[in-house]
Amino acid sequence: MTVVDRVAAPAEAPASAPRERGEAAPGLERDGVLRTCSIGALQLEAGGALPEVELAYETWGTLNADASNAVLIQHALTGDTHVAQGHADQPGWWDSLVGPGKPVDTDRYFVVAANMIGGCYGSTGPASPDPDGLPWGSRFPFVTIRDSVRAEARLADRLGIRRWHAVVGGSMGGARALEWGLTYPHRVRHCVVVAIGAYSTAEQIALAQAQVLAIRQDPNYRDGDYYGAVPPNAGLGLARRIAHISYRSEPEFSFRFGRRGQGAENPIEASDGAATRGRYQVESYLDHQADKLVRRFDANSYVILTEALMSHDVGRGRGGAERALSAAGSEFFIASVTSDRLYFPEQSEQLARWLPGEVPVYTIDAKIGHDGFLTEIGQLGPELRRRVFTL
Amino acid sequence: MTVVDRVAAPAEAPASAPRERGEAAPGLERDGVLRTCSIGALQLEAGGALPEVELAYETWGTLNADASNAVLIQHALTGDTHVAQGHADQPGWWDSLVGPGKPVDTDRYFVVAANMIGGCYGSTGPASPDPDGLPWGSRFPFVTIRDSVRAEARLADRLGIRRWHAVVGGSMGGARALEWGLTYPHRVRHCVVVAIGAYSTAEQIALAQAQVLAIRQDPNYRDGDYYGAVPPNAGLGLARRIAHISYRSEPEFSFRFGRRGQGAENPIEASDGAATRGRYQVESYLDHQADKLVRRFDANSYVILTEALMSHDVGRGRGGAERALSAAGSEFFIASVTSDRLYFPEQSEQLARWLPGEVPVYTIDAKIGHDGFLTEIGQLGPELRRRVFTL
Repeated sequence: MTVVDRVAAPAEAPASAPRERGEAAPGLERDGVLRTCSIGALQLEAGGALPEVELAYETWGTLNADASNAVLIQHALTGDTHVAQGHADQPGWWDSLVGPGKPVDTDRYFVVAANMIGGCYGSTGPASPDPDGLPWGSRFPFVTIRDSVRAEARLADRLGIRRWHAVVGGSMGGARALEWGLTYPHRVRHCVVVAIGAYSTAEQIALAQAQVLAIRQDPNYRDGDYYGAVPPNAGLGLARRIAHISYRSEPEFSFRFGRRGQGAENPIEASDGAATRGRYQVESYLDHQADKLVRRFDANSYVILTEALMSHDVGRGRGGAERALSAAGSEFFIASVTSDRLYFPEQSEQLARWLPGEVPVYTIDAKIGHDGFLTEIGQLGPELRRRVFTL
Repeated sequence: MTVVDRVAAPAEAPASAPRERGEAAPGLERDGVLRTCSIGALQLEAGGALPEVELAYETWGTLNADASNAVLIQHALTGDTHVAQGHADQPGWWDSLVGPGKPVDTDRYFVVAANMIGGCYGSTGPASPDPDGLPWGSRFPFVTIRDSVRAEARLADRLGIRRWHAVVGGSMGGARALEWGLTYPHRVRHCVVVAIGAYSTAEQIALAQAQVLAIRQDPNYRDGDYYGAVPPNAGLGLARRIAHISYRSEPEFSFRFGRRGQGAENPIEASDGAATRGRYQVESYLDHQADKLVRRFDANSYVILTEALMSHDVGRGRGGAERALSAAGSEFFIASVTSDRLYFPEQSEQLARWLPGEVPVYTIDAKIGHDGFLTEIGQLGPELRRRVFTL
């Protein structure tokens, strides 16, 4: 195989990527280590173009002789390419699903994960240099889910993968998996779509708008041209809080935090008669979630990927979602999380109903909410082994 | 009766109050017209004090000779005292519940509605002058639901009302009604609590935190000292968007807006290859909701009342909510909205279960979500006539 010859030399990982950069042994790919691939210029669905695009990706396992064992795993909104630990130090975000002996067994399958265009984990994004060497910032174009999928198809070409055994994703990763199935039906044998529907709904768009505004209204955002200056951390942190509430369930918050104060802080006590008070535990928790994201994610990428997610609609230009799905050619594996109140199980049911034939909806039984697609993905292992990963 | 003698002369209505100021006919109160009452200094639960408090209020109907027909109606977070139209031009927000011949019949009952302290519809709030004549701004103290209820008890004293026939409220108004029942059991015969539970839950606190941060992070907020300068409209507008999503249901958004673009705007079209695109209808709708609130509400009041709502907990200092409720002395009428996903019906069920005796939970059957307590309150009319307003 000629994968190594075809891909560009690994670029530097972004400063925010917390993982080790392993040295590849000669002639041997190391699992779970970031590398990049140049895919050329990309015309965009909404108009505009990116003159030179690089996709960052990781792989696990070995592509077999007829390139029939390749699996593409798609990350969610603030996710990255580090699906499984591999030879790196950092654990992966789907280690319970992907790895040696796991349902997606990297001793049998060749697994690929690419960072979305517009992201901040190595692929061309708003912090990348434009042709003049300046960060794109406010000039980075509007990209859609379909733009990312078309870029990933070029990566597949360069990796020598004509057809994926499976494309797998949850949440926004599920949106990309679904678009793969609809855009390239002959290149996707199995399409695994977890915790997302056929399109972003009005409510999902509304929540996304609030998050985007939280960032845009931060004076440090400067319309996206803040590189080299103070980044809009407060705005990004607020966006994360809004999002994180939607990722979890009400019982989860009640069980973990109730009305307790944080440590010795008293939420019903003012200092000096002024409007200052201690924090509730749940406030401190969301402060922490915000702080963690701000340290690892770029605000421009958050805006760009969130607006890409708003664009998610398999029916656009295809006569509507129902019609588009009824003509789909892959084998679909659909799953939802019982307590998900961002991507409701009913939306997965609708998606399955519109697909050809009888498509069951598998269930992740979790109380946590949407994030069950990350924390409890192992529940799908047995069915995935039976239906999709049968090698 | 000596009501007119006991209350202060009507103050000027706040600039943001959109309603007519009627002239009272000599010796006759006009229904639904704003007036104010001085209640003196108020020590606050969390520490601190307000040296001189005025409460703005409206009334409808006539207090009877033994003052046994008085009803207090409590407004929600951004509500005001204009419950019913009365002699004013502006319709009221509960006209279907309150008025001549309505379930709360103002030909039979004397209805009172007071603006919360900290608000911006006439009662002492952050825009009010401090003893030096300067707006309180950042120095306005932290107030709780209980502080408001204690202030309202003084208003009741001045109006000659020893015991309310009923205290009625929905959402944050329900929190105040409930606190009345627990704080002054001998002064509340019937306590009508709609679409709220015994305390603000972790999730309700989390959503409130996001809204407060949206305002605090607006550079025009200046810690609350923005009077005379540009107010933090962007922050207040974002807070409203976050809140409004929680007030409505997912099916409501899907039904009304789906994925449609606003007018001729195309959400999947970039101008000049830049990251600008048209808006979805739901974005335009939330822009409109934000704009409407910004024109009528003060950001400081939004922060202060939201933090007061976070403080809602009938169990504080009373051995917990269950114990406090089990000792309650009023007759309770509890109701919830079927599609409410901010104040879940289960939370009303819990509240009813903890009250003494068998307390049913009545249901507003509405698809709209929490706001059903405003738009569909008429559904409770027959049961309220049967159980509470029997004159």
